[in-house]
Amino acid sequence: MSFFPSLNLGALGLTADFTQALSLATEFGYGGIDPDLGYLQTHDAAQVAGEVTGAGLAWGVAGLPVNLTADAATYAGQLAGLPALADTLAAAGVTRVGTWLNPSSDEVTYRRNFNRHADRIATVAELLSPAGIRLGLEYVGPKTSWEVGQYPFVHTLAETRELIAASGAGNVGVFLDTYHWYTAGESADDLRGLTNADVVGCDINDAPVGKDRREQIDLSRELPAATGVIDAAGFVAALTDIGYDGPVKVEPFNKAFAAQPVREAVEQARAAMKVVLGR
Amino acid sequence: MSFFPSLNLGALGLTADFTQALSLATEFGYGGIDPDLGYLQTHDAAQVAGEVTGAGLAWGVAGLPVNLTADAATYAGQLAGLPALADTLAAAGVTRVGTWLNPSSDEVTYRRNFNRHADRIATVAELLSPAGIRLGLEYVGPKTSWEVGQYPFVHTLAETRELIAASGAGNVGVFLDTYHWYTAGESADDLRGLTNADVVGCDINDAPVGKDRREQIDLSRELPAATGVIDAAGFVAALTDIGYDGPVKVEPFNKAFAAQPVREAVEQARAAMKVVLGR
Amino acid sequence: MSFFPSLNLGALGLTADFTQALSLATEFGYGGIDPDLGYLQTHDAAQVAGEVTGAGLAWGVAGLPVNLTADAATYAGQLAGLPALADTLAAAGVTRVGTWLNPSSDEVTYRRNFNRHADRIATVAELLSPAGIRLGLEYVGPKTSWEVGQYPFVHTLAETRELIAASGAGNVGVFLDTYHWYTAGESADDLRGLTNADVVGCDINDAPVGKDRREQIDLSRELPAATGVIDAAGFVAALTDIGYDGPVKVEPFNKAFAAQPVREAVEQARAAMKVVLGR
Amino acid sequence: MSFFPSLNLGALGLTADFTQALSLATEFGYGGIDPDLGYLQTHDAAQVAGEVTGAGLAWGVAGLPVNLTADAATYAGQLAGLPALADTLAAAGVTRVGTWLNPSSDEVTYRRNFNRHADRIATVAELLSPAGIRLGLEYVGPKTSWEVGQYPFVHTLAETRELIAASGAGNVGVFLDTYHWYTAGESADDLRGLTNADVVGCDINDAPVGKDRREQIDLSRELPAATGVIDAAGFVAALTDIGYDGPVKVEPFNKAFAAQPVREAVEQARAAMKVVLGR
Repeated sequence: MSFFPSLNLGALGLTADFTQALSLATEFGYGGIDPDLGYLQTHDAAQVAGEVTGAGLAWGVAGLPVNLTADAATYAGQLAGLPALADTLAAAGVTRVGTWLNPSSDEVTYRRNFNRHADRIATVAELLSPAGIRLGLEYVGPKTSWEVGQYPFVHTLAETRELIAASGAGNVGVFLDTYHWYTAGESADDLRGLTNADVVGCDINDAPVGKDRREQIDLSRELPAATGVIDAAGFVAALTDIGYDGPVKVEPFNKAFAAQPVREAVEQARAAMKVVLGR
Repeated sequence: MSFFPSLNLGALGLTADFTQALSLATEFGYGGIDPDLGYLQTHDAAQVAGEVTGAGLAWGVAGLPVNLTADAATYAGQLAGLPALADTLAAAGVTRVGTWLNPSSDEVTYRRNFNRHADRIATVAELLSPAGIRLGLEYVGPKTSWEVGQYPFVHTLAETRELIAASGAGNVGVFLDTYHWYTAGESADDLRGLTNADVVGCDINDAPVGKDRREQIDLSRELPAATGVIDAAGFVAALTDIGYDGPVKVEPFNKAFAAQPVREAVEQARAAMKVVLGR
Repeated sequence: MSFFPSLNLGALGLTADFTQALSLATEFGYGGIDPDLGYLQTHDAAQVAGEVTGAGLAWGVAGLPVNLTADAATYAGQLAGLPALADTLAAAGVTRVGTWLNPSSDEVTYRRNFNRHADRIATVAELLSPAGIRLGLEYVGPKTSWEVGQYPFVHTLAETRELIAASGAGNVGVFLDTYHWYTAGESADDLRGLTNADVVGCDINDAPVGKDRREQIDLSRELPAATGVIDAAGFVAALTDIGYDGPVKVEPFNKAFAAQPVREAVEQARAAMKVVLGR
Repeated sequence: MSFFPSLNLGALGLTADFTQALSLATEFGYGGIDPDLGYLQTHDAAQVAGEVTGAGLAWGVAGLPVNLTADAATYAGQLAGLPALADTLAAAGVTRVGTWLNPSSDEVTYRRNFNRHADRIATVAELLSPAGIRLGLEYVGPKTSWEVGQYPFVHTLAETRELIAASGAGNVGVFLDTYHWYTAGESADDLRGLTNADVVGCDINDAPVGKDRREQIDLSRELPAATGVIDAAGFVAALTDIGYDGPVKVEPFNKAFAAQPVREAVEQARAAMKVVLGR
């Protein structure tokens, strides 16, 4: 098995109900669809799972319903609610959740932030484990993101791997994104140090032209292969080399793209992925 | 203000209702009484506070209702319940809680255990902070305790201070115990490196004769000054030097002592404290 | 005793031989003079000490002859040479050395860099200890400095204190600089968390007008009180409150200033210090 | 290529000159011989290398001439001398050095000791790297060893791997010993988490009967397969599974064995290895 394109309307800046999303994913040849935890909580999870399977699709990655940098009271509440949510995901057959790492803080030093993340990740992973769910951590690469506060935090693959190791959790890996990989100045060989077991999810995007790598701004991106600023071919070749078999999605954070009718946007995103993924 | 003897029947191995405990504390000249969280939850906390104050007593230290080494699900549940419990303690005027540190693990390495403790302590401290409560951490000193599992953990004052620093919390300090101070091989000068703000609570006990320091077993102790194995005078002198103004209790873990009638035992404990505390 | 102005010609961008420097320091009412290790190595250290004392001056802070971020071979060589250099400093009566912390790296992650610094500092401090010398660490505050490489490093007082604690060394403290304190966005109260024992040395400088705090560039500064951008009064008040009794110098990194004749520059620097220090 | 028995007379408690050792290694079918750094320093390293190769032998593992827990002055001196020694080893074609980790300290806490080791290992590894030499770290497993001081330190495979990761060095791995693996309570599957690249060297020994695993004393061992207390077959099967291709030696710390004539002892050790290694 190999990696497959997964549809996530929210990540495209689009809105539609789940039935329509399923229909669009099938029509345009997606291999998977990202789960919506809110939808699963208000519907029969097993039945939804059947619809996805029936459409010949696999699940992508759900968002982690715990904020790793929340204040203690918020964190305590989200943690207490996690086992039930994990059960819902498990009932639907979802096996991957992901979250991103805030690359900057005005409150806590790097080391304190690291310890906080390491233990919270370990705790969350322990709660996800009985449900058979893996957690993917997405580092945020742009300098314009990590320079914001007084204390820059994890914003590279190397640091993310240190964090995963420190958590000691067996069901935690990295969630890759071409955009962060590019803005962090990393190479295809950096990815080849990973195995399929280390990668929980993946995004492919491109970056706008006319900006230096260190000037790129996180929420202003392009569809894959739109500009060629990012070496998507090198990235995908590395994914292939390490045998990654999970979902790949697009998250362009692009207003012009998202202003299109949903159907056209979904089709266009799929076509862009085909250029890069070769399938 | 100076430190004061506080009555904790449970720590003496005794049982009585709160009204009786209050009466005994007054009769035998204790300066304080340790709060019982379960009792406060089932009574009017403000009214109980009034009774304590009315009896001329101050509060000692309540037990922390969170297990720092619990599995993630248990921890998540206890954490979620903590704010309400902290409010109850605050309503009663309690400002100190304490817990002990398990000095050994068969599951996690020292470093992983340290990170886990540091973040859990930070999270707990953040939840206690709005209620104006400080948390005291009691290290467990005997070699016979830290050698039990495959990975010894924090069992000295120096390590406990590292842990408190790593938590980054302003409302966390140490809970001292002559017995752990002795079994850890520490000196009065080690205590002089602390300030009153660093000490949340304190126990005074003695150790049985006939055992080497490293052979002492945690749950087999004596009343203060019973044997003279522990240099209680040096310990108390250091407490005085640093201006400690909190509660001091006795926790003999001694069956013969606890087999006495409650009234006799409370009187005897108080007399033993007087020898050591000079008051 | 209180803090005193110390003359360091190199830090002013000036050049003169030691005899002339001593004469200028006396003429313009400096309280001390910074040692030049190279000079001490090539002269009779005890005799130089006598000249300094005879001129009514105290020693300031010498530069640490070890590069904390050097490659292993360079580091090994510098380390091996340190005991003899420490003896030379001790023979001259010098008790303070200082070095700055590179706030950025392209090679090593924050954590690895932190561990490297912590152990190298511990090792250096152990070698300085028999000579009775304390080591001061100067953090570099400007965002334009810590954002340079892929991995920002220690650039605040809070992080520097974490590093000192991690070293475990009793003879290591902080070397303060108004310029770094300002660019790090710190307050006078942050300084009040220190004691005299925590501070090994101090610089006072001002920053140019017309630049946001985060735009300031390290090697472009002004004499103390030249612009009023930095709250020197608040800084000095905090130094007074904590009882700092060591040297204070000026390091303006200012070409126009350094282009003056040595005598005029030394006089001008002293006058600027008087405005800020009140003496 | 597979692992091979290597002769180390010192580890057997025996003494002979290098020429005799080489002759014995050949006679009794050893595949390698451990280098003696002192011998190489006083002879022509390239010529010695030729004799070893000419005898059909490979080099085993040399001792690291740096004490990782030495005081700073000793460490600085050893570090400064390391590059020249590494060159000597390289001239002889030696590619592996090893050292053991002291599992206990009376001076420094676990975390401080860990940081010290991590940076010293990184520094040593950087100095060995140009010479193409890898460093193997041997953890010491017996409880009777790690319980000695006030602060137990790294004494398991899991902790050793944490330490190697923290060093960030690419040329550092583990040096295994059946005796430490057994006394640490580890399994063959724990070894299967390693790769050949992770293992720099290996010892096989057995433990005396009549002692509980936690009662075993480090310097009292038996030849491999002598008692069957240690599951040597499981250990060797795991080495085979991970493709370990380096040297294996015997280190019995056994006076009766070492009291034999050298020739008989070398033969007996080889025979014992054959039973366990199957070659």
